[in-house]
Amino acid sequence: MSETDMLLARYRRELFENVVPFWERYGIDREMGGYFTCLDRDGALYSTDKYMWLQGRAVWMFSRLHNEASRDRGWLDLAQQGLDFIRAYGRAPDGRVYFSLTRDGRPIHIQRKIYSEVFFVMALAEMARATGSQEYLDEAKALFWQTYTVWKEPERLGRPILPGRFVGTTLADPMVFLGMVEELARLDDPAQYDAVVKEMKGIALRHIHGDRQLVLENVGPAGEFVDTPVGRLLNPGHAIELAWFLIHLAQRTGDADLIAPALDIVDWSLARGWDAEHGGLYYFLDSEGRPPLPLEWSMKLWWPITEAMYATLLAWDVSGELRFLEWHRRIAEWGFTHLHDAQGSEWFGYLDRRGEPTHTLKGGAWKGFFHLPRALLYSVQLLQRRSVGVSAHVRHAGAR
Amino acid sequence: MSETDMLLARYRRELFENVVPFWERYGIDREMGGYFTCLDRDGALYSTDKYMWLQGRAVWMFSRLHNEASRDRGWLDLAQQGLDFIRAYGRAPDGRVYFSLTRDGRPIHIQRKIYSEVFFVMALAEMARATGSQEYLDEAKALFWQTYTVWKEPERLGRPILPGRFVGTTLADPMVFLGMVEELARLDDPAQYDAVVKEMKGIALRHIHGDRQLVLENVGPAGEFVDTPVGRLLNPGHAIELAWFLIHLAQRTGDADLIAPALDIVDWSLARGWDAEHGGLYYFLDSEGRPPLPLEWSMKLWWPITEAMYATLLAWDVSGELRFLEWHRRIAEWGFTHLHDAQGSEWFGYLDRRGEPTHTLKGGAWKGFFHLPRALLYSVQLLQRRSVGVSAHVRHAGAR
Repeated sequence: MSETDMLLARYRRELFENVVPFWERYGIDREMGGYFTCLDRDGALYSTDKYMWLQGRAVWMFSRLHNEASRDRGWLDLAQQGLDFIRAYGRAPDGRVYFSLTRDGRPIHIQRKIYSEVFFVMALAEMARATGSQEYLDEAKALFWQTYTVWKEPERLGRPILPGRFVGTTLADPMVFLGMVEELARLDDPAQYDAVVKEMKGIALRHIHGDRQLVLENVGPAGEFVDTPVGRLLNPGHAIELAWFLIHLAQRTGDADLIAPALDIVDWSLARGWDAEHGGLYYFLDSEGRPPLPLEWSMKLWWPITEAMYATLLAWDVSGELRFLEWHRRIAEWGFTHLHDAQGSEWFGYLDRRGEPTHTLKGGAWKGFFHLPRALLYSVQLLQRRSVGVSAHVRHAGAR
Repeated sequence: MSETDMLLARYRRELFENVVPFWERYGIDREMGGYFTCLDRDGALYSTDKYMWLQGRAVWMFSRLHNEASRDRGWLDLAQQGLDFIRAYGRAPDGRVYFSLTRDGRPIHIQRKIYSEVFFVMALAEMARATGSQEYLDEAKALFWQTYTVWKEPERLGRPILPGRFVGTTLADPMVFLGMVEELARLDDPAQYDAVVKEMKGIALRHIHGDRQLVLENVGPAGEFVDTPVGRLLNPGHAIELAWFLIHLAQRTGDADLIAPALDIVDWSLARGWDAEHGGLYYFLDSEGRPPLPLEWSMKLWWPITEAMYATLLAWDVSGELRFLEWHRRIAEWGFTHLHDAQGSEWFGYLDRRGEPTHTLKGGAWKGFFHLPRALLYSVQLLQRRSVGVSAHVRHAGAR
C-alpha cells in the first residue's frame, strides 16, 4: 500500500466513521430544526443556542457530502432541515443575517460584520446544486450582491465610522468573497463574478508582502504595512487557508500566476507560525515580535491545523515539491496526536501552547461541522484523484 | 518586626518603588497628553492608542495617590494632564464616552457598554476631591446620572434589543454603580445616591446564591439561575472584587449585614476559583462544570490575584478570622512569584494555567495603572491603620 493510499484510507475513515457520525448523532435538532453545535466531549449538549455562521456552514457541509460523496446516507435531509431553519428565522427585517438565535429561532445577537451572510450564501449555493432549486440560487445571488454592497458601504452595518478607525482592508473580506464565488460560479455564468474576483484577488494579493515573507491580516488602503497592533497581526492558519483558496481559484480560472504566491504563503506561514518547541500553529503573532493583543495568541486551535493539512497536501499536489508532503505528514501527525480524541469522537478544538486540551468541547459557538470535515473531504478527493491517476488541474512543478 | 509590618513594608516598596515609577517613566504622553498603556516588559511602547477605561482609571489612581499618599510627588499634575486629555477628546457628540482614541485624540471605537463612562466619572470625582473643582464634581454627577439613564434604557447604547437576548442582570453593572457612588458620596450629600445604592445592592445580592455557594455573573430578572453558558458563567476574581466593594459599602453606611455575605463570597470564590494544582485563580468557570465558552478561561490574570490580595486582607481585618490571612499569604506569595517580574518593573498581566507568562507586556488595552496599584495602596492603608492601632470601621468577628 502506497503512502498516499494509506493517507486516503485514514482520512476517509476519520471523515466517514468518526466525524460525520458525531454530528449526525448529536448535532441535529430533530425537534425544532437546525443544528446543535455546543457539544461536549461525549456529545452532551451544553447550550441550545444556534450560531448562524455554524448553521450555514453545516448546511453547506452536509449538502457538499451529498453532492460529492454519497447520495444515499441521508445527508440531503440533514442539510435541508438546516436550511429550512435558517430561512425561517435567520434574517433580520432589513435582510441581514443574525449571528445567533435561540433554539426555537428567536434572534439573540446580530454582528456588525458580514460573515453570517457569507455562510448563508454558501449554504444556499450548495443546496441549489443539490436540489436544482432556482429559488435557492436566486436567493444566494441576491444575498451575495447585498453583502457586497454592505461591504462597500460599511456604515450599513450600524458601526459608527469614526475618524481614528483603522483604514484599509482585512484579509477575511477578500477571502470570503473568493470563497462565495468558488461556490456560485459553478452554478451559472461565472463571468458575472469576474469583476468581483479581480477586485478581491487584487486586495488579497496586497496582503502578501513578499519582501518580508509576510501575510498581514490587515493592511492600509494601498496594501501598505501599518505599524500598529492591528497592522502587525499575523494569523498563520488564516494565511494558509488563503493559500488553498488561491490554488482553487487558479484551478478554476486557469490563472496559473496564483500558484507561486500560494506556495510562498504556505512556506512562510509554516516557517513563522509552527511552534518549533511544542508543535502546532500559533493562533496569532505580531509581525515585529511585539506582544500580540489577543489573550489566546499562543493557543493551538484545530482549524489552523486542518487548513494546513489540506493546504500542504494541495501544495505538494500542484508543485510536486516533497517538502510540502513532509510538512503534511508532520502537521497531520500533530493533529491526530493532539486534536483527535483517542477516547471519543471528533477532534478537540482548543489546546494550550503545549498541546494539552483547555476545553473538552467538540463544538461551540465557533467550532461546528465545517473545518475538519471540509479538510478531510478535500484531502480524500485529492488523494482519490491521484490514486486513479488524474493529475492536478494545474501542474506547476517548475514554479519555484 | 511583626508579620503585618513586614507586609506593610513589602507592599509600600512594591507600590512606590516598583509600580508607580514604571508608569511615571513610561506611561505618560508628555507631548499629546493622556497615558500610554501598551507597554512591553521594559516599558517599550508597542501601541500609542489610548483606551478610555484605562485613561480614566489612571487619572483616578494618580489623583488618589495625591489625595491619600503624598502631595509632593507630582501626581496631581500627572492626573491633571490625563483628565485634560479625556475632557478634550473623550466624549462623543451625544455625551457618551469613546472606548479608544488615537494618540492625538481621534476616536477609534465606541463600545455599546457603559464602562468608559464609569471610569471617567471616577476620574472626575477624585480630581474634584484633589482640586476642589465644583466644575469637575458637577460634570461627574451629570455623567453619573446620564449613565444611570442609559443603563435603564439600554436601547440608547445602539444595540438592537432582540427578542432572544439574555434578560436579566450582569454583576458588573451593580458593581460599577456602587463603585462610582463610593467615590461620589464623599464629595457632597450622600443621600442623593441612597436610592441607587439600594437598587444596586439589591441587584448585586441577587447574584449571590447562598444555597449553592455561588456568585453568578449573570442571573435572570428575579435573580434566578439560568442554565445556559451565560447564566452558568463564574468569574471568581470579579466576585472577590464584589466582596470588598460590599465591605467598603458596609464601612461607609454602617450596613453591617453586608459583611457576612462578603466573607462568604471570598470563601466560596477561593474554594472554587483557586487552582489546586498550579495555584492562581481561573479567569472563568462554568458553575456546572460544562466547557466555559471563553478561550482564556483557564488563564491566570493579574487582576483576580490583586483583587484577592486586598479582599482577603480586608476580610481578615473585619472578621479576625485567620483563614483569610492564610489565604492572603498564599495569594500574595503566588502573585510575587509569578506576576511580579524579578528582572524588571511592574507585573506581568497574563499567564497560562501553569503560571508561565503568555505575554511579556506590562500594560495593554485592558491592563493599565489601576488594579495592582489600587490593591497595593488599599493594602498599605489597611496595614497602616492596624499598625497604629485603628481598628476596622466595622468589626464583625462574630459574623460566622
